[in-house]
Amino acid sequence: MHTRLCELLGIDYPIVAFTPSEHVAAAVTRAGGLGVLGCVRFNEASALDETLDWMDANTDGKPYGVDVVMPSKIPEEGTKGELSNHIPPEHREFVARTLRELGVPETKANDETGGVLGWLHSIARSHVDVSLKHRVSLIANALGSPPSDVIEQAHSHGVKVAALAGKAVHARSHVDNGVDIVVAQGYEAGGHTGEIASMVLLPEVVDQVGHDVPVLAAGGIGSGRQVAAALALGACGVWMGSYWLTTTEYLESMNNSSTMQEALVAATSSDTVRSRIYSGKPARLLKTRWTDAWQQPGAPTPLPMPLQNLLVSEAHQRIAASHDPTVVAMPVGQIVGRMNAVRPVAELMSELVSEYGDAVDRLQKTR
Amino acid sequence: MHTRLCELLGIDYPIVAFTPSEHVAAAVTRAGGLGVLGCVRFNEASALDETLDWMDANTDGKPYGVDVVMPSKIPEEGTKGELSNHIPPEHREFVARTLRELGVPETKANDETGGVLGWLHSIARSHVDVSLKHRVSLIANALGSPPSDVIEQAHSHGVKVAALAGKAVHARSHVDNGVDIVVAQGYEAGGHTGEIASMVLLPEVVDQVGHDVPVLAAGGIGSGRQVAAALALGACGVWMGSYWLTTTEYLESMNNSSTMQEALVAATSSDTVRSRIYSGKPARLLKTRWTDAWQQPGAPTPLPMPLQNLLVSEAHQRIAASHDPTVVAMPVGQIVGRMNAVRPVAELMSELVSEYGDAVDRLQKTR
Repeated sequence: MHTRLCELLGIDYPIVAFTPSEHVAAAVTRAGGLGVLGCVRFNEASALDETLDWMDANTDGKPYGVDVVMPSKIPEEGTKGELSNHIPPEHREFVARTLRELGVPETKANDETGGVLGWLHSIARSHVDVSLKHRVSLIANALGSPPSDVIEQAHSHGVKVAALAGKAVHARSHVDNGVDIVVAQGYEAGGHTGEIASMVLLPEVVDQVGHDVPVLAAGGIGSGRQVAAALALGACGVWMGSYWLTTTEYLESMNNSSTMQEALVAATSSDTVRSRIYSGKPARLLKTRWTDAWQQPGAPTPLPMPLQNLLVSEAHQRIAASHDPTVVAMPVGQIVGRMNAVRPVAELMSELVSEYGDAVDRLQKTR
Repeated sequence: MHTRLCELLGIDYPIVAFTPSEHVAAAVTRAGGLGVLGCVRFNEASALDETLDWMDANTDGKPYGVDVVMPSKIPEEGTKGELSNHIPPEHREFVARTLRELGVPETKANDETGGVLGWLHSIARSHVDVSLKHRVSLIANALGSPPSDVIEQAHSHGVKVAALAGKAVHARSHVDNGVDIVVAQGYEAGGHTGEIASMVLLPEVVDQVGHDVPVLAAGGIGSGRQVAAALALGACGVWMGSYWLTTTEYLESMNNSSTMQEALVAATSSDTVRSRIYSGKPARLLKTRWTDAWQQPGAPTPLPMPLQNLLVSEAHQRIAASHDPTVVAMPVGQIVGRMNAVRPVAELMSELVSEYGDAVDRLQKTR
């Protein structure tokens, strides 16, 4: 399993792992892929700085990346308090009532740390600044092209820039803006996702950006056969996110609470839902009693980004503290149906590589 | 491009073409694939009989198949008149008003031939009886397993039975019922379709039914790269429907009216919508002013099968007669974005085979 992405990023296998866990990211890098640490949870740049110190010390000198959430145009933004004033009381009442009905206990008020502010442009920019002081080799942006000065800043440090795209026209525009690597993310992916499935999207993106631009396949990848399919469609590597959520390394990032992993291991590929309730933009989530409640008649329409996440952030904390797998609020792709045990990253990586070889050999016999 | 499906069905390439057009079906069979004629439009068994006479005479002695629409349990049914009584007047008023607003002209009342009755079990059963008098080698059922006596009837004629499945558990049940070939149909497919995308669904179905059962990949296939991806995922062939709608042979089945093909050629992969307005069950359609109208606030909820199709059948006729590409009512998959010219079947087939070889060669180099 070797493509030109391996030379471009200095990795053994063209497997890029997006993860909010530094333990997973480091393990993927050590196993020959590229671990990409999601930065959106770091409200304070100093906390990211410390975590990247840890990454530098735990990746055997091998490359890793970071993922930020940054719109290409700088939006108006305010303090958390100002933003909160835009949340209608009906929405707050619905969340409070729903948590009560779902049996999610109250927790000590913890408003200071609540709410993911990484959606805010200023915070995302601090993530870039901090990352470039560390040994990162890739900055990926979940919202497409970053602003042009950020791309220049990365390039001046010898760092490649990747951007997610759910449509071929967006991929084209990212490349025109100076992005080096396109992540083509299909409908089946977890988190923020578009409507076009990977089988259709991938060759469209490859044809649109031309064969000189490396395209990574995101959405629906959790086996060597799926990596082979992605490469057959023209990708030169894969971007996997959900798949690492049921690793032993991820458990370390959950303070060894296994509730979320229990819920994922039990879920089938039918147990996800694409909804705006997590962030305000359509994102695929694990289907639970929490997501069901938002689909009942009378449930409010989700608010736009970043208000919706501010609205539900305390709920997310209470849900996490409840240790109830039936209310978990978690982005995950349809590949969750293949995540049926908690296993170490190194084992998953070696299985991907070996099954990939088998799939290619099988195809060769049909020639 | 050769798999065990070729031996099983006596074909050169593992490409199965579902199509309502006998011209397309015969051309695919002549080009080395398996043309499968959709029977749902034949309200009279005698008309199907005549068309299959034509198929027998125009396929150079090569195999072809038919597709019926038959639930495994025999539902209650009534005459068209009795069924029509269940359609609420508000629904009829919405359709009449919408057609007026869209500028679709009235046509001469043609109630006798209007409405697809092939959804009815009795009609679908007549399709099977007629087909078995002809040189068919495959009977496929769009609604999953046919009743067990129909499977036995087909097998006693040496005819294989295929069934569509959108979930792995359904595929398992089809095989347990005696079905020979599973068609795993992903979210991106045209017509009736489930929620799980091909990239995730295919290996799930293959693993669920075991490697002895041939699985065909449906949804998102319109290039040799996509055939290679399907086979990498474990399919032993592909089932393609939408892709043949923009062939010169299909034009013959449209009385040389090119309106629908113009609409398809212009559409991108974003220009489809999954909706219950065509038949009462979720089906992916070309997105037009007609489908948009059903998504406006105040539009009625579609009726269950078979009432919804009875409701819209006259509208479909008026829309077809209007020759306006912006109101076309047509099932099609996301692959419509790759259907950018009207071309002969033989040309598309030879391109699929050649691009498939290139994709496999490219993969071999990554080994």
